Amino acid sequence: MIDKLMNMLEEREDEMIEIRRYLHENPELSFKEEKTANYIADFYKDKDVEIVTNAGNGYGIVVTIKGGNQGKTVALRADFDALPIKEEAEVPFKSKNEGIMHACGHDAHTAYLLVLADCLIQLKDNIHGAVKIIHQHAEEVPPGGAKSIVEEGFLDDVNAIFGIHVLPLAPAGTVGYHSGYSFNGRAYFKLRLQASGGHGSSPHKANDAIVAGAYFVTNVQTIVSRRVDPFNAGVVTIGSFDGKGTFNVIKDSIELEGDIRYSNEETKDVIDKEIHRIVKGTEELFGVTCELTYEPDYPPLYNDPELTSFVADTLNAIEDKDIKEVTEFPKMAPSDDFAYYLEKVPGSYFYIGCTPEGVEEPYFNHHPKFDIDEDAILVAAKSVGHVVCSYLDMDK
Amino acid sequence: MIDKLMNMLEEREDEMIEIRRYLHENPELSFKEEKTANYIADFYKDKDVEIVTNAGNGYGIVVTIKGGNQGKTVALRADFDALPIKEEAEVPFKSKNEGIMHACGHDAHTAYLLVLADCLIQLKDNIHGAVKIIHQHAEEVPPGGAKSIVEEGFLDDVNAIFGIHVLPLAPAGTVGYHSGYSFNGRAYFKLRLQASGGHGSSPHKANDAIVAGAYFVTNVQTIVSRRVDPFNAGVVTIGSFDGKGTFNVIKDSIELEGDIRYSNEETKDVIDKEIHRIVKGTEELFGVTCELTYEPDYPPLYNDPELTSFVADTLNAIEDKDIKEVTEFPKMAPSDDFAYYLEKVPGSYFYIGCTPEGVEEPYFNHHPKFDIDEDAILVAAKSVGHVVCSYLDMDK
Amino acid sequence: MIDKLMNMLEEREDEMIEIRRYLHENPELSFKEEKTANYIADFYKDKDVEIVTNAGNGYGIVVTIKGGNQGKTVALRADFDALPIKEEAEVPFKSKNEGIMHACGHDAHTAYLLVLADCLIQLKDNIHGAVKIIHQHAEEVPPGGAKSIVEEGFLDDVNAIFGIHVLPLAPAGTVGYHSGYSFNGRAYFKLRLQASGGHGSSPHKANDAIVAGAYFVTNVQTIVSRRVDPFNAGVVTIGSFDGKGTFNVIKDSIELEGDIRYSNEETKDVIDKEIHRIVKGTEELFGVTCELTYEPDYPPLYNDPELTSFVADTLNAIEDKDIKEVTEFPKMAPSDDFAYYLEKVPGSYFYIGCTPEGVEEPYFNHHPKFDIDEDAILVAAKSVGHVVCSYLDMDK
Amino acid sequence: MIDKLMNMLEEREDEMIEIRRYLHENPELSFKEEKTANYIADFYKDKDVEIVTNAGNGYGIVVTIKGGNQGKTVALRADFDALPIKEEAEVPFKSKNEGIMHACGHDAHTAYLLVLADCLIQLKDNIHGAVKIIHQHAEEVPPGGAKSIVEEGFLDDVNAIFGIHVLPLAPAGTVGYHSGYSFNGRAYFKLRLQASGGHGSSPHKANDAIVAGAYFVTNVQTIVSRRVDPFNAGVVTIGSFDGKGTFNVIKDSIELEGDIRYSNEETKDVIDKEIHRIVKGTEELFGVTCELTYEPDYPPLYNDPELTSFVADTLNAIEDKDIKEVTEFPKMAPSDDFAYYLEKVPGSYFYIGCTPEGVEEPYFNHHPKFDIDEDAILVAAKSVGHVVCSYLDMDK
Repeated sequence: MIDKLMNMLEEREDEMIEIRRYLHENPELSFKEEKTANYIADFYKDKDVEIVTNAGNGYGIVVTIKGGNQGKTVALRADFDALPIKEEAEVPFKSKNEGIMHACGHDAHTAYLLVLADCLIQLKDNIHGAVKIIHQHAEEVPPGGAKSIVEEGFLDDVNAIFGIHVLPLAPAGTVGYHSGYSFNGRAYFKLRLQASGGHGSSPHKANDAIVAGAYFVTNVQTIVSRRVDPFNAGVVTIGSFDGKGTFNVIKDSIELEGDIRYSNEETKDVIDKEIHRIVKGTEELFGVTCELTYEPDYPPLYNDPELTSFVADTLNAIEDKDIKEVTEFPKMAPSDDFAYYLEKVPGSYFYIGCTPEGVEEPYFNHHPKFDIDEDAILVAAKSVGHVVCSYLDMDK
Repeated sequence: MIDKLMNMLEEREDEMIEIRRYLHENPELSFKEEKTANYIADFYKDKDVEIVTNAGNGYGIVVTIKGGNQGKTVALRADFDALPIKEEAEVPFKSKNEGIMHACGHDAHTAYLLVLADCLIQLKDNIHGAVKIIHQHAEEVPPGGAKSIVEEGFLDDVNAIFGIHVLPLAPAGTVGYHSGYSFNGRAYFKLRLQASGGHGSSPHKANDAIVAGAYFVTNVQTIVSRRVDPFNAGVVTIGSFDGKGTFNVIKDSIELEGDIRYSNEETKDVIDKEIHRIVKGTEELFGVTCELTYEPDYPPLYNDPELTSFVADTLNAIEDKDIKEVTEFPKMAPSDDFAYYLEKVPGSYFYIGCTPEGVEEPYFNHHPKFDIDEDAILVAAKSVGHVVCSYLDMDK
Repeated sequence: MIDKLMNMLEEREDEMIEIRRYLHENPELSFKEEKTANYIADFYKDKDVEIVTNAGNGYGIVVTIKGGNQGKTVALRADFDALPIKEEAEVPFKSKNEGIMHACGHDAHTAYLLVLADCLIQLKDNIHGAVKIIHQHAEEVPPGGAKSIVEEGFLDDVNAIFGIHVLPLAPAGTVGYHSGYSFNGRAYFKLRLQASGGHGSSPHKANDAIVAGAYFVTNVQTIVSRRVDPFNAGVVTIGSFDGKGTFNVIKDSIELEGDIRYSNEETKDVIDKEIHRIVKGTEELFGVTCELTYEPDYPPLYNDPELTSFVADTLNAIEDKDIKEVTEFPKMAPSDDFAYYLEKVPGSYFYIGCTPEGVEEPYFNHHPKFDIDEDAILVAAKSVGHVVCSYLDMDK
Repeated sequence: MIDKLMNMLEEREDEMIEIRRYLHENPELSFKEEKTANYIADFYKDKDVEIVTNAGNGYGIVVTIKGGNQGKTVALRADFDALPIKEEAEVPFKSKNEGIMHACGHDAHTAYLLVLADCLIQLKDNIHGAVKIIHQHAEEVPPGGAKSIVEEGFLDDVNAIFGIHVLPLAPAGTVGYHSGYSFNGRAYFKLRLQASGGHGSSPHKANDAIVAGAYFVTNVQTIVSRRVDPFNAGVVTIGSFDGKGTFNVIKDSIELEGDIRYSNEETKDVIDKEIHRIVKGTEELFGVTCELTYEPDYPPLYNDPELTSFVADTLNAIEDKDIKEVTEFPKMAPSDDFAYYLEKVPGSYFYIGCTPEGVEEPYFNHHPKFDIDEDAILVAAKSVGHVVCSYLDMDK
């Protein structure tokens, strides 16, 4: 079956590219991907599968392919939302929606998975077990789509999940993997610090919110420098210090907003606790009132070591002209809500190199000039195809 | 002559109040006091005086009253600009100019001085020497009007200068004085701090302007806490920390604005030097680029001890039913460009109590509900009248 | 009587100098001035006065001279303890007690007061009222001698108190005065900060006392920079940061010691409150345990304005070849327990210039090379003599 | 040959334990291990090997075992110095040298390697290539012994190096490995900060070294929090803040000492550069003079991925009753001068579990109660024996 699948995928490479270009031209923002979802649903029309639309808290689509034989259930996920970025890449299929762009490669994710799903549908009599295809909305904006899909039970009967992300860290043909914690988890916070204003010449009659805020920022540095295990990754960035005022008036309140990253649960807990502690300490130190909004969203993404080895070993073992290298990739600083699936079931989220040919310093995901080598789409389809087939055959 | 003058002033008390109310209803912002200046100039029309309009860098008016006898020249100054404050005081003569208000009492200053000047004009044959009446524009906004009036030479032939400010630190009837440094000097600064932005998850690839700015604020505290002589007054207020941004994007630049106060020249020099030092140190510490605008404006106001004793002794010696108490007032945190006159010639700037009757906690100058006891206007006229007459008679 | 007194003092100038030199050669530390006290007590032996030895919490001596007539009671105080300083001044009467030195001029204070007291005893029939001579021990070391002398009731029947301090701010012949708050008050604090140690490579397993202590020091700067009225003097000096350890071991505890100064009660209260607040905030911020010892000792010294004017006016009015100038002196940064007397009764503590002739930059009090122009001793005796006589005669 | 070797090692287990106990009873400090070195040299007396004593900058001993056949040269290293720790472990072979203790397991390292070396000597006719046995002095104290041994050329003809460290992270029977950067590199720094002292009441006349030092500590936190890649490990610990002084005297100078750790060369360079930058910035900010001693010593230890896989694969492949588990160990926060060898030639430094049986929370290396399960010694000998034999046979 595996050879047949690979042949089918090779034959349909142009179709994948076509789909990707169509999606690229018609990007939609997170939670607003109605047309994209309709396009996907149409693709499955008249096919012999179960399809659920409006899955989760948005336009998610879950397609279940039941194999002809008993076996395990494996899930595959591709996300399909785009970003509020004005495209600057010079491509013939440039975004038609002003200020919106598929700058993260979700178009390619969806393109490969649609075609792979169709092939699996055609081959389903040979499948042992079932394959759940998750077309996920709203990966880019917390709370994201994944969490709600998990909460609605779509993974309750799933044994393992796999997904890929295109990354310009290597040329098309390279597949990357990372075991254990692989993407950072994330929290958002907003701190409103209320003091009391006054005339610039008389600080003792006021309580200076800017001074309290500045000391807060310096105190916060100790979380990463002294509280987080040096071998874990922890980041506390204060991206906004909104304290604009008049030069000779003591500011009565300021608002800070921050971004927190952590490579694992332990670090998440440390930062969570310490931010709260420092906020309380700031109230005490400066006699101010703090209103803290603290919202952890995507958890750290944990690739199951066994299934990650399985992915690496499977792809290393095969001989496929399109899959030229299988290698370890580093940890990723960003966050991905694929992490929610991996909290529910074991699995592995791996990487498809997509650096355009001949480019030394490619634009990274989220850049207005981001572009991929479209050969990577077939590599994605084949890699995931190999993994699914091997997985379902494993205990046959 | 002094008795005659006092009688004339008493008789014209209602006129002073009327003038004050007219000005109060028609306030104009600093450097835009065209109508006020016309009103003042009209007042002197057909009077036997030299009058210079458009004096200094705005609508200043200088009126010279030459006495019938040889003698010294004394200058008197009243400022006439208003503030960008929306009046909240419930008075029948409330400001007609939306968002502009005589919230600092300059209306009263001008009112008393116009009438006093007129009386002196009528009595001028008896005057030994000359009196220069300075109606000054733009006291509230640096660079102010005083500096340019001095620069244009209006004080070159002046032997001494006096002025008053209404202050609700005591009821009408009280005159306050302070010898030596009395109002703080001031500087303004703006610091643009340029670092380099980046993604919130990867601080090592960026250079965080908010962190550098926060440490700058904490480092700056040491100027007042460790560098300024504790017996001098020094203040460094950072009134604006403009670092609004996106929570997960490392800020590439911020802008701070600050207000500096100092009670004397020594402290001015210390703060000036230390701010520059800390800015340079911040560049070094954080590898950022700082663009500093540092502009000292009004100097510390220094009341000549001899002439201040002269004012206090003169007013203590007289018996006047309206001048009930003459007492030392504390140093003032704000700044006044009267200080420029006192850099040029000796003099004394003193205080006229104006707390409305029966009010325990009066609204202070610059408050939207600021109001005065109008009895204070006659007290101002009489006090300055006594001082001028005594001064010019002194060496007669 | 005043002329007689002045003649007597002039005649006994050599004796004063002799006494001063004897005391200078035989200095004793605070609370250990047994021999000095015996020397003083011996001086009064067989004189017709009440004498109390061991007054207060040490070797204090209080001598009461009752005048021949009814009247008020005035107290005069001279302190007699020395300092733990190794004398470096090259004088023939250099300290014989290794490492102890009269480096603050208390030898001169005691010398003039003994002779003045003796003269007053001889003239006592002419005195209206009484004079209490307080020879005070232990001015240099808190809790000092003054507080206990007040507590034992020695000032209960006293109407006013005067004292002087020699100061090399002017040559002998100059008397200085300052009205209102004149010397700073003082508090001592010790902060033991307990965290938990660990290996330098693993900060997350420890809690770094040095980091917490360093942030405490930076946070403390805001007390003076933002909380104290700029027109008041406030100082928080951390003179000791005892955090010596091993470079690669995270320090588990540190100890800070500090010195606090304030020019008045308001500032005392502000600093007291804020230090406690910041200590509590530090516990919260860093999860450490703080043990704070906070001990206000000498209060700010407040010279009664009326009696200070009385001193200045009295000394200005007289014609005395030895008292050449009477002038205002600035506020003093140090502290003096004379302040306790002034909390109990009104009075004035004034200054006797003592810069050695021909010296441009004299060594200040407490310097190992401190020395005085001995002419200042007679100036002290005469000034205080004038003040006492005028005071007791005042309401005669 | 491998079976023969394993049998020989099993038979000589008691001897290994005996040697370990002897060494444990007779610990010597780094660079002073004269008797230990003599003991080791004696062990090789009359054996058919090349032996070099006093190798490197101390008592190092390098023994070369030439095999009977051509081949590669592999080096094995065991360190033999002890620590300045007073032993608290209750063992019959407790340290006889007061205040000195084998608290890091170097006694076990040396014990297994002596016996393994002797076995290899006996089997040398079968060896393809050569084995260099490095008995290294002074691992605990920089500059350590390894660097000088490399510099003297002992590794010039070596193809690979292996070594082990006992660690109570797992019971005896477990072998741990880690590929790539495995131990942190390290630097030491000392900062003498010279300001100028003064009286606690007059900060403006002094320049407070404690304040400058405290801000330095807070500024330094930004290196780890903002400059180091969150996925790398970086630590800056200030273990000593020597600022003990008198509470009311402003401190004129302080001395800080610190410990720096980095997981790789990139992080080493970042911290090095930033510490120097902040020191320079501190001079500028506070007008102080800084004397910085900055000494990187042990580099980050980099285990060659290929040879580490080789070790893991080799030990996984064998069946040996004593080697029960082979597993990945985490990165280590401490530092080891084995890193210098790995800068010169590829190799792998791996771990021998040694948690005493039945102990849940074992005392870690460097603890006064540190102890090992002596079964671990045989595990060490066998593991290294397998690795050496496999390595030299590899390309045979």
